Amino acid sequence: MVRDIKTFKFFEVLLIYEMLEVLKALAMMNATRKVVKISSKELAEHIGQSLQTAARKLKELEDEGLIDRTLTKDGQFVVITEKGKQLLYKEYMDYKKIFDDEGTIKIKGEVFSGVGEGRYYVSLEGYRKQFREKLGFDPYPGTLNLRIPKEEMYFRRRLDEERGILIEGFSTEDRTFGEVKAFKCRINGIEGAIVIPKRTHYPAEILEVISPVKLRDKLGLKDGDFVEVEVIL
Amino acid sequence: MVRDIKTFKFFEVLLIYEMLEVLKALAMMNATRKVVKISSKELAEHIGQSLQTAARKLKELEDEGLIDRTLTKDGQFVVITEKGKQLLYKEYMDYKKIFDDEGTIKIKGEVFSGVGEGRYYVSLEGYRKQFREKLGFDPYPGTLNLRIPKEEMYFRRRLDEERGILIEGFSTEDRTFGEVKAFKCRINGIEGAIVIPKRTHYPAEILEVISPVKLRDKLGLKDGDFVEVEVIL
Repeated sequence: MVRDIKTFKFFEVLLIYEMLEVLKALAMMNATRKVVKISSKELAEHIGQSLQTAARKLKELEDEGLIDRTLTKDGQFVVITEKGKQLLYKEYMDYKKIFDDEGTIKIKGEVFSGVGEGRYYVSLEGYRKQFREKLGFDPYPGTLNLRIPKEEMYFRRRLDEERGILIEGFSTEDRTFGEVKAFKCRINGIEGAIVIPKRTHYPAEILEVISPVKLRDKLGLKDGDFVEVEVIL
Repeated sequence: MVRDIKTFKFFEVLLIYEMLEVLKALAMMNATRKVVKISSKELAEHIGQSLQTAARKLKELEDEGLIDRTLTKDGQFVVITEKGKQLLYKEYMDYKKIFDDEGTIKIKGEVFSGVGEGRYYVSLEGYRKQFREKLGFDPYPGTLNLRIPKEEMYFRRRLDEERGILIEGFSTEDRTFGEVKAFKCRINGIEGAIVIPKRTHYPAEILEVISPVKLRDKLGLKDGDFVEVEVIL
Protein backbone atom coordinates (compact mmCIF):
# COMPACT_ATOMS: atom_id res chain seq x y z
CA MET A 1 0.00 0.00 0.00
CA VAL A 2 2.75 2.40 0.96
CA ARG A 3 4.53 1.31 -2.18
CA ASP A 4 1.50 2.20 -4.28
CA ILE A 5 1.31 5.68 -2.84
CA LYS A 6 4.99 6.23 -3.52
CA THR A 7 4.65 5.01 -7.08
CA PHE A 8 1.79 7.41 -7.57
CA LYS A 9 3.74 10.28 -6.10
CA PHE A 10 6.68 9.39 -8.31
CA PHE A 11 4.63 9.86 -11.47
CA GLU A 12 2.84 12.87 -10.10
CA VAL A 13 6.08 14.70 -9.36
CA LEU A 14 7.56 13.78 -12.72
CA LEU A 15 4.38 14.93 -14.41
CA ILE A 16 4.45 18.31 -12.71
CA TYR A 17 8.07 18.76 -13.72
CA GLU A 18 7.37 17.77 -17.30
CA MET A 19 4.43 20.16 -17.36
CA LEU A 20 6.46 22.95 -15.83
CA GLU A 21 9.09 22.56 -18.49
CA VAL A 22 6.63 23.19 -21.32
CA LEU A 23 4.68 25.79 -19.37
CA LYS A 24 7.87 27.70 -18.68
CA ALA A 25 8.89 27.48 -22.35
CA LEU A 26 5.54 29.02 -23.29
CA ALA A 27 5.93 31.68 -20.60
CA MET A 28 9.33 32.59 -22.03
CA MET A 29 7.44 33.31 -25.27
CA ASN A 30 5.34 35.77 -23.23
CA ALA A 31 2.28 33.49 -23.19
CA THR A 32 1.40 34.81 -19.72
CA ARG A 33 0.89 38.24 -21.24
CA LYS A 34 -0.46 37.61 -24.70
CA VAL A 35 -1.97 34.94 -26.87
CA VAL A 36 0.85 33.18 -28.71
CA LYS A 37 0.48 31.51 -32.08
CA ILE A 38 2.46 28.28 -32.05
CA SER A 39 2.06 24.98 -33.85
CA SER A 40 2.79 21.74 -32.02
CA LYS A 41 5.65 21.26 -34.48
CA GLU A 42 7.22 24.59 -33.51
CA LEU A 43 6.80 23.78 -29.83
CA ALA A 44 8.38 20.35 -30.40
CA GLU A 45 11.42 21.97 -31.97
CA HIS A 46 11.59 24.57 -29.24
CA ILE A 47 11.61 22.07 -26.38
CA GLY A 48 13.68 19.52 -28.31
CA GLN A 49 11.09 16.78 -28.16
CA SER A 50 9.00 14.85 -30.66
CA LEU A 51 5.88 16.26 -32.29
CA GLN A 52 3.77 13.61 -30.57
CA THR A 53 5.21 14.49 -27.17
CA ALA A 54 4.72 18.22 -27.69
CA ALA A 55 1.11 17.71 -28.80
CA ARG A 56 0.41 15.42 -25.84
CA LYS A 57 1.92 17.86 -23.38
CA LEU A 58 -0.12 20.75 -24.73
CA LYS A 59 -3.21 18.61 -24.31
CA GLU A 60 -2.23 17.77 -20.72
CA LEU A 61 -1.65 21.43 -19.93
CA GLU A 62 -5.05 22.26 -21.39
CA ASP A 63 -6.78 19.42 -19.51
CA GLU A 64 -5.23 20.68 -16.27
CA GLY A 65 -6.50 24.18 -16.99
CA LEU A 66 -2.97 25.56 -17.11
CA ILE A 67 -3.32 26.89 -20.65
CA ASP A 68 -6.18 28.03 -22.83
CA ARG A 69 -5.99 26.90 -26.43
CA THR A 70 -7.87 28.06 -29.52
CA LEU A 71 -7.69 26.38 -32.90
CA THR A 72 -8.68 28.44 -35.93
CA LYS A 73 -8.10 28.08 -39.64
CA ASP A 74 -4.98 30.22 -39.09
CA GLY A 75 -3.46 27.83 -36.58
CA GLN A 76 -3.07 27.05 -32.90
CA PHE A 77 -3.18 29.87 -30.34
CA VAL A 78 -2.08 29.36 -26.74
CA VAL A 79 -2.23 31.48 -23.61
CA ILE A 80 -1.29 30.63 -20.01
CA THR A 81 -4.25 30.82 -17.61
CA GLU A 82 -4.24 32.30 -14.12
CA LYS A 83 -3.90 28.75 -12.76
CA GLY A 84 -0.86 28.22 -14.98
CA LYS A 85 0.61 31.51 -13.85
CA GLN A 86 0.13 30.48 -10.22
CA LEU A 87 2.12 27.29 -10.80
CA LEU A 88 4.92 29.28 -12.43
CA TYR A 89 4.76 31.89 -9.68
CA LYS A 90 5.24 29.24 -7.01
CA GLU A 91 8.42 28.17 -8.79
CA TYR A 92 9.52 31.79 -9.05
CA MET A 93 9.02 32.30 -5.32
CA ASP A 94 10.99 29.10 -4.58
CA TYR A 95 13.92 30.38 -6.62
CA LYS A 96 13.62 33.81 -5.07
CA LYS A 97 13.89 32.21 -1.65
CA ILE A 98 16.96 30.26 -2.76
CA PHE A 99 18.71 33.45 -3.84
CA ASP A 100 17.46 35.81 -1.15
CA ASP A 101 20.20 36.44 1.34
CA GLU A 102 22.55 34.74 -1.08
CA GLY A 103 25.64 36.47 0.24
CA THR A 104 25.66 34.49 3.47
CA ILE A 105 26.89 30.98 4.13
CA LYS A 106 26.92 28.83 7.23
CA ILE A 107 29.88 26.82 8.49
CA LYS A 108 29.90 24.46 11.45
CA GLY A 109 32.99 24.10 13.57
CA GLU A 110 34.15 22.45 16.78
CA VAL A 111 35.37 24.65 19.62
CA PHE A 112 38.93 24.04 20.83
CA SER A 113 41.44 25.90 22.97
CA GLY A 114 44.30 27.68 21.25
CA VAL A 115 47.64 28.58 22.73
CA GLY A 116 46.75 32.24 23.24
CA GLU A 117 48.34 33.42 20.00
CA GLY A 118 45.03 34.92 18.87
CA ARG A 119 44.80 37.03 22.02
CA TYR A 120 48.23 38.49 21.30
CA TYR A 121 47.49 39.48 17.71
CA VAL A 122 44.01 40.86 18.35
CA SER A 123 45.41 43.11 21.10
CA LEU A 124 47.88 44.79 18.74
CA GLU A 125 46.76 48.37 18.12
CA GLY A 126 47.83 48.13 14.46
CA TYR A 127 45.10 45.54 13.90
CA ARG A 128 42.61 46.78 16.51
CA LYS A 129 42.18 50.21 14.98
CA GLN A 130 41.42 48.58 11.61
CA PHE A 131 38.92 46.19 13.23
CA ARG A 132 37.13 49.22 14.69
CA GLU A 133 37.16 51.06 11.36
CA LYS A 134 36.46 48.19 8.98
CA LEU A 135 34.40 45.78 11.09
CA GLY A 136 32.67 48.33 13.28
CA PHE A 137 33.58 46.92 16.67
CA ASP A 138 36.41 46.81 19.18
CA PRO A 139 37.17 43.13 19.65
CA TYR A 140 37.47 41.29 22.93
CA PRO A 141 41.19 40.40 23.17
CA GLY A 142 41.04 36.76 22.20
CA THR A 143 39.68 34.51 19.47
CA LEU A 144 37.24 31.64 19.49
CA ASN A 145 39.01 28.77 17.75
CA LEU A 146 37.01 26.42 15.57
CA ARG A 147 38.15 23.23 13.91
CA ILE A 148 36.18 22.62 10.71
CA PRO A 149 35.17 18.99 10.16
CA LYS A 150 35.93 17.34 6.82
CA GLU A 151 32.35 17.52 5.53
CA GLU A 152 32.20 21.29 6.14
CA MET A 153 35.40 22.08 4.26
CA TYR A 154 33.61 23.20 1.09
CA PHE A 155 32.79 26.61 2.52
CA ARG A 156 36.07 26.80 4.45
CA ARG A 157 37.81 26.58 1.07
CA ARG A 158 35.40 29.17 -0.34
CA LEU A 159 36.68 31.65 2.26
CA ASP A 160 40.17 31.20 0.85
CA GLU A 161 38.85 32.14 -2.59
CA GLU A 162 36.77 35.13 -1.48
CA ARG A 163 38.37 38.54 -1.09
CA GLY A 164 36.82 39.43 2.26
CA ILE A 165 37.72 42.63 4.10
CA LEU A 166 41.41 43.46 3.98
CA ILE A 167 43.09 44.22 7.29
CA GLU A 168 46.47 45.64 6.31
CA GLY A 169 49.79 44.55 7.70
CA PHE A 170 52.05 46.95 9.59
CA SER A 171 55.50 47.20 11.11
CA THR A 172 56.70 47.98 14.60
CA GLU A 173 60.32 48.61 15.61
CA ASP A 174 60.88 44.90 16.16
CA ARG A 175 59.02 43.15 13.39
CA THR A 176 56.36 43.22 10.68
CA PHE A 177 52.82 41.89 10.95
CA GLY A 178 51.14 40.43 7.88
CA GLU A 179 47.83 41.08 6.17
CA VAL A 180 44.66 39.54 7.55
CA LYS A 181 41.48 38.74 5.66
CA ALA A 182 38.25 39.24 7.62
CA PHE A 183 34.61 38.26 7.06
CA LYS A 184 31.79 39.69 9.13
CA CYS A 185 29.79 36.93 10.75
CA ARG A 186 27.19 36.05 13.36
CA ILE A 187 27.28 33.22 15.88
CA ASN A 188 23.90 32.55 17.50
CA GLY A 189 22.96 36.12 16.63
CA ILE A 190 26.10 37.69 18.11
CA GLU A 191 28.10 39.95 15.81
CA GLY A 192 31.67 39.01 15.07
CA ALA A 193 34.21 38.39 12.34
CA ILE A 194 36.28 35.55 11.04
CA VAL A 195 39.94 36.52 10.76
CA ILE A 196 42.29 34.59 8.51
CA PRO A 197 45.98 35.55 8.52
CA LYS A 198 47.32 35.65 4.98
CA ARG A 199 50.37 33.62 5.76
CA THR A 200 51.24 30.47 3.91
CA HIS A 201 51.25 28.01 6.77
CA TYR A 202 47.96 28.88 8.43
CA PRO A 203 46.12 25.57 8.91
CA ALA A 204 43.33 25.05 6.38
CA GLU A 205 40.86 23.45 8.79
CA ILE A 206 40.96 26.22 11.42
CA LEU A 207 38.79 29.31 11.76
CA GLU A 208 39.25 32.04 14.35
CA VAL A 209 36.37 34.28 15.31
CA ILE A 210 36.62 37.65 17.03
CA SER A 211 33.73 39.56 18.56
CA PRO A 212 33.04 42.53 20.87
CA VAL A 213 32.29 39.96 23.60
CA LYS A 214 33.99 36.82 24.87
CA LEU A 215 32.04 34.32 22.77
CA ARG A 216 33.05 31.29 24.83
CA ASP A 217 31.46 32.76 27.97
CA LYS A 218 28.56 34.54 26.30
CA LEU A 219 27.45 31.38 24.49
CA GLY A 220 28.48 28.98 27.28
CA LEU A 221 30.80 27.05 24.98
CA LYS A 222 33.35 24.45 25.98
CA ASP A 223 35.89 22.46 23.99
CA GLY A 224 34.21 19.87 21.77
CA ASP A 225 30.98 21.87 21.31
CA PHE A 226 29.88 22.57 17.75
CA VAL A 227 28.73 26.02 16.67
CA GLU A 228 27.36 27.33 13.40
CA VAL A 229 28.85 30.54 12.03
CA GLU A 230 26.83 32.59 9.56
CA VAL A 231 29.38 34.29 7.34
CA ILE A 232 28.71 37.33 5.16
CA LEU A 233 30.78 36.92 2.00
CA MET B 1 20.97 12.08 -38.89
CA VAL B 2 18.64 14.91 -37.96
CA ARG B 3 16.61 12.35 -36.08
CA ASP B 4 19.66 11.31 -34.08
CA ILE B 5 20.42 14.86 -33.04
CA LYS B 6 16.84 15.38 -31.95
CA THR B 7 16.82 12.18 -29.95
CA PHE B 8 19.98 13.28 -28.22
CA LYS B 9 18.54 16.68 -27.45
CA PHE B 10 15.39 15.05 -26.14
CA PHE B 11 17.33 13.14 -23.50
CA GLU B 12 19.59 16.04 -22.76
CA VAL B 13 16.70 18.38 -22.02
CA LEU B 14 14.94 15.78 -19.90
CA LEU B 15 18.17 15.16 -18.04
CA ILE B 16 18.65 18.83 -17.23
CA TYR B 17 15.09 19.04 -15.98
CA GLU B 18 15.47 15.94 -13.85
CA MET B 19 18.71 17.34 -12.46
CA LEU B 20 17.15 20.70 -11.79
CA GLU B 21 14.37 19.09 -9.84
CA VAL B 22 16.76 17.46 -7.36
CA LEU B 23 19.13 20.41 -7.33
CA LYS B 24 16.26 22.74 -6.51
CA ALA B 25 15.04 20.39 -3.76
CA LEU B 26 18.53 20.53 -2.22
CA ALA B 27 18.63 24.31 -2.61
CA MET B 28 15.32 24.57 -0.76
CA MET B 29 17.12 22.83 2.12
CA ASN B 30 19.65 25.70 1.98
CA ALA B 31 22.37 23.59 0.37
CA THR B 32 23.58 26.67 -1.52
CA ARG B 33 24.47 28.26 1.80
CA LYS B 34 25.56 25.40 4.01
CA VAL B 35 26.60 21.79 3.93
CA VAL B 36 23.48 19.67 4.37
CA LYS B 37 23.46 16.21 5.91
CA ILE B 38 21.07 14.03 3.95
CA SER B 39 20.93 10.31 3.24
CA SER B 40 19.86 9.09 -0.19
CA LYS B 41 16.84 7.55 1.56
CA GLU B 42 15.79 10.92 2.99
CA LEU B 43 16.26 12.57 -0.40
CA ALA B 44 14.21 9.80 -2.04
CA GLU B 45 11.34 10.45 0.35
CA HIS B 46 11.65 14.18 -0.11
CA ILE B 47 11.42 14.08 -3.90
CA GLY B 48 8.94 11.20 -3.91
CA GLN B 49 11.15 8.86 -5.90
CA SER B 50 12.84 5.54 -5.28
CA LEU B 51 16.04 5.15 -3.27
CA GLN B 52 17.85 3.93 -6.39
CA THR B 53 16.70 6.94 -8.39
CA ALA B 54 17.67 9.39 -5.66
CA ALA B 55 21.13 7.82 -5.30
CA ARG B 56 21.64 7.84 -9.07
CA LYS B 57 20.60 11.47 -9.36
CA LEU B 58 22.94 12.54 -6.60
CA LYS B 59 25.73 10.76 -8.43
CA GLU B 60 24.81 12.52 -11.69
CA LEU B 61 24.78 15.89 -9.96
CA GLU B 62 28.19 15.14 -8.47
CA ASP B 63 29.60 13.92 -11.81
CA GLU B 64 28.39 17.14 -13.45
CA GLY B 65 30.09 19.19 -10.74
CA LEU B 66 26.77 20.64 -9.60
CA ILE B 67 27.13 19.38 -6.04
CA ASP B 68 30.02 18.49 -3.77
CA ARG B 69 29.51 15.38 -1.69
CA THR B 70 31.37 14.07 1.34
CA LEU B 71 30.81 10.67 2.90
CA THR B 72 31.93 10.20 6.50
CA LYS B 73 31.12 7.66 9.17
CA ASP B 74 28.36 10.07 10.25
CA GLY B 75 26.64 10.03 6.89
CA GLN B 76 26.33 11.82 3.56
CA PHE B 77 26.94 15.57 3.34
CA VAL B 78 25.96 17.60 0.30
CA VAL B 79 26.54 21.18 -0.80
CA ILE B 80 25.66 22.91 -4.07
CA THR B 81 28.72 24.18 -5.95
CA GLU B 82 29.08 27.51 -7.74
CA LYS B 83 28.32 25.70 -11.01
CA GLY B 84 25.14 24.30 -9.47
CA LYS B 85 24.18 27.73 -8.20
CA GLN B 86 24.69 29.16 -11.68
CA LEU B 87 22.27 26.62 -13.16
CA LEU B 88 19.68 27.49 -10.50
CA TYR B 89 20.32 31.19 -11.00
CA LYS B 90 19.62 30.90 -14.71
CA GLU B 91 16.24 29.39 -13.86
CA TYR B 92 15.62 32.15 -11.33
CA MET B 93 16.37 34.82 -13.92
CA ASP B 94 14.02 33.10 -16.41
CA TYR B 95 11.19 33.18 -13.89
CA LYS B 96 12.02 36.74 -12.94
CA LYS B 97 11.71 37.71 -16.58
CA ILE B 98 8.36 35.93 -16.80
CA PHE B 99 7.01 37.90 -13.87
CA ASP B 100 8.69 41.23 -14.50
CA ASP B 101 6.19 43.63 -15.91
CA GLU B 102 3.54 41.10 -14.97
CA GLY B 103 0.76 43.67 -14.76
CA THR B 104 0.65 44.18 -18.51
CA ILE B 105 -1.00 42.09 -21.19
CA LYS B 106 -1.15 42.42 -24.94
CA ILE B 107 -4.29 42.10 -27.05
CA LYS B 108 -4.47 42.17 -30.83
CA GLY B 109 -7.48 43.69 -32.54
CA GLU B 110 -8.68 44.63 -36.01
CA VAL B 111 -9.43 48.27 -36.75
CA PHE B 112 -12.97 49.06 -37.90
CA SER B 113 -15.09 52.19 -38.25
CA GLY B 114 -17.77 52.84 -35.67
CA VAL B 115 -20.87 54.96 -36.07
CA GLY B 116 -19.47 57.94 -34.16
CA GLU B 117 -21.06 56.98 -30.84
CA GLY B 118 -17.64 56.95 -29.17
CA ARG B 119 -16.96 60.52 -30.26
CA TYR B 120 -20.21 61.64 -28.62
CA TYR B 121 -19.52 60.01 -25.27
CA VAL B 122 -15.85 60.97 -25.04
CA SER B 123 -16.81 64.62 -25.65
CA LEU B 124 -19.13 64.76 -22.63
CA GLU B 125 -17.57 66.93 -19.94
CA GLY B 126 -18.85 64.55 -17.21
CA TYR B 127 -16.52 61.85 -18.57
CA ARG B 128 -13.76 64.13 -19.90
CA LYS B 129 -12.94 65.69 -16.56
CA GLN B 130 -12.59 62.21 -15.05
CA PHE B 131 -10.36 61.09 -17.94
CA ARG B 132 -8.10 64.06 -17.21
CA GLU B 133 -8.04 63.33 -13.47
CA LYS B 134 -7.86 59.55 -13.50
CA LEU B 135 -6.05 58.78 -16.77
CA GLY B 136 -3.88 61.88 -16.91
CA PHE B 137 -4.80 63.08 -20.38
CA ASP B 138 -7.49 64.98 -22.24
CA PRO B 139 -8.71 62.60 -24.92
CA TYR B 140 -9.09 63.32 -28.61
CA PRO B 141 -12.87 63.31 -29.19
CA GLY B 142 -13.26 59.90 -30.76
CA THR B 143 -12.37 56.27 -30.16
CA LEU B 144 -10.34 53.76 -32.11
CA ASN B 145 -12.57 50.71 -32.51
CA LEU B 146 -11.03 47.27 -32.43
CA ARG B 147 -12.67 43.94 -33.13
CA ILE B 148 -10.98 41.17 -31.13
CA PRO B 149 -10.51 37.91 -33.06
CA LYS B 150 -11.67 34.66 -31.50
CA GLU B 151 -8.17 33.48 -30.55
CA GLU B 152 -7.47 36.71 -28.64
CA MET B 153 -10.63 36.56 -26.54
CA TYR B 154 -8.86 35.16 -23.46
CA PHE B 155 -7.52 38.55 -22.44
CA ARG B 156 -10.64 40.38 -23.66
CA ARG B 157 -12.56 38.30 -21.09
CA ARG B 158 -9.90 39.06 -18.48
CA LEU B 159 -10.69 42.75 -18.85
CA ASP B 160 -14.29 42.00 -17.89
CA GLU B 161 -13.03 40.35 -14.70
CA GLU B 162 -10.51 43.04 -13.76
CA ARG B 163 -11.59 46.09 -11.80
CA GLY B 164 -9.78 48.67 -13.90
CA ILE B 165 -10.13 52.39 -13.23
CA LEU B 166 -13.67 53.46 -12.43
CA ILE B 167 -15.05 56.37 -14.42
CA GLU B 168 -18.25 57.29 -12.60
CA GLY B 169 -21.63 57.79 -14.20
CA PHE B 170 -23.44 61.13 -14.01
CA SER B 171 -26.73 62.77 -14.85
CA THR B 172 -27.64 65.75 -17.00
CA GLU B 173 -31.08 67.36 -17.20
CA ASP B 174 -32.11 64.96 -19.96
CA ARG B 175 -30.63 61.60 -19.04
CA THR B 176 -28.15 59.58 -17.02
CA PHE B 177 -24.82 58.26 -18.26
CA GLY B 178 -23.51 54.97 -16.90
CA GLU B 179 -20.24 53.93 -15.33
CA VAL B 180 -17.24 53.19 -17.53
CA LYS B 181 -14.29 50.95 -16.74
CA ALA B 182 -10.93 52.13 -18.07
CA PHE B 183 -7.49 50.54 -18.44
CA LYS B 184 -4.41 52.55 -19.26
CA CYS B 185 -2.71 51.21 -22.36
CA ARG B 186 -0.13 51.84 -25.06
CA ILE B 187 -0.45 51.30 -28.79
CA ASN B 188 2.88 51.36 -30.62
CA GLY B 189 4.24 53.38 -27.71
CA ILE B 190 1.43 55.96 -27.71
CA GLU B 191 -0.35 56.48 -24.41
CA GLY B 192 -4.07 55.79 -24.27
CA ALA B 193 -6.81 53.94 -22.45
CA ILE B 194 -9.31 51.22 -23.15
CA VAL B 195 -12.81 52.29 -22.15
CA ILE B 196 -15.53 49.72 -21.53
CA PRO B 197 -19.05 50.97 -20.75
CA LYS B 198 -20.54 48.98 -17.89
CA ARG B 199 -23.79 48.33 -19.64
CA THR B 200 -25.18 44.90 -20.19
CA HIS B 201 -25.37 44.86 -23.96
CA TYR B 202 -21.91 46.12 -24.84
CA PRO B 203 -20.51 43.66 -27.39
CA ALA B 204 -17.94 41.26 -25.92
CA GLU B 205 -15.60 41.24 -28.91
CA ILE B 206 -15.18 45.03 -29.17
CA LEU B 207 -12.59 47.29 -27.56
CA GLU B 208 -12.55 51.07 -27.80
CA VAL B 209 -9.35 53.00 -27.25
CA ILE B 210 -9.04 56.67 -26.41
CA SER B 211 -5.84 58.71 -26.51
CA PRO B 212 -4.65 62.34 -26.43
CA VAL B 213 -4.11 62.02 -30.20
CA LYS B 214 -6.14 60.67 -33.10
CA LEU B 215 -4.66 57.18 -33.17
CA ARG B 216 -5.97 56.32 -36.63
CA ASP B 217 -4.02 59.21 -38.19
CA LYS B 218 -1.01 59.10 -35.90
CA LEU B 219 -0.43 55.40 -36.58
CA GLY B 220 -1.62 55.49 -40.20
CA LEU B 221 -4.30 52.88 -39.56
CA LYS B 222 -7.12 51.89 -41.87
CA ASP B 223 -10.00 49.46 -41.49
CA GLY B 224 -8.82 45.85 -41.49
CA ASP B 225 -5.38 46.62 -40.01
CA PHE B 226 -4.37 44.74 -36.88
CA VAL B 227 -2.83 46.53 -33.91
CA GLU B 228 -1.47 45.25 -30.62
CA VAL B 229 -2.59 47.03 -27.46
CA GLU B 230 -0.43 46.75 -24.35
CA VAL B 231 -2.85 46.99 -21.44
CA ILE B 232 -1.88 47.82 -17.86
CA LEU B 233 -4.15 45.78 -15.60
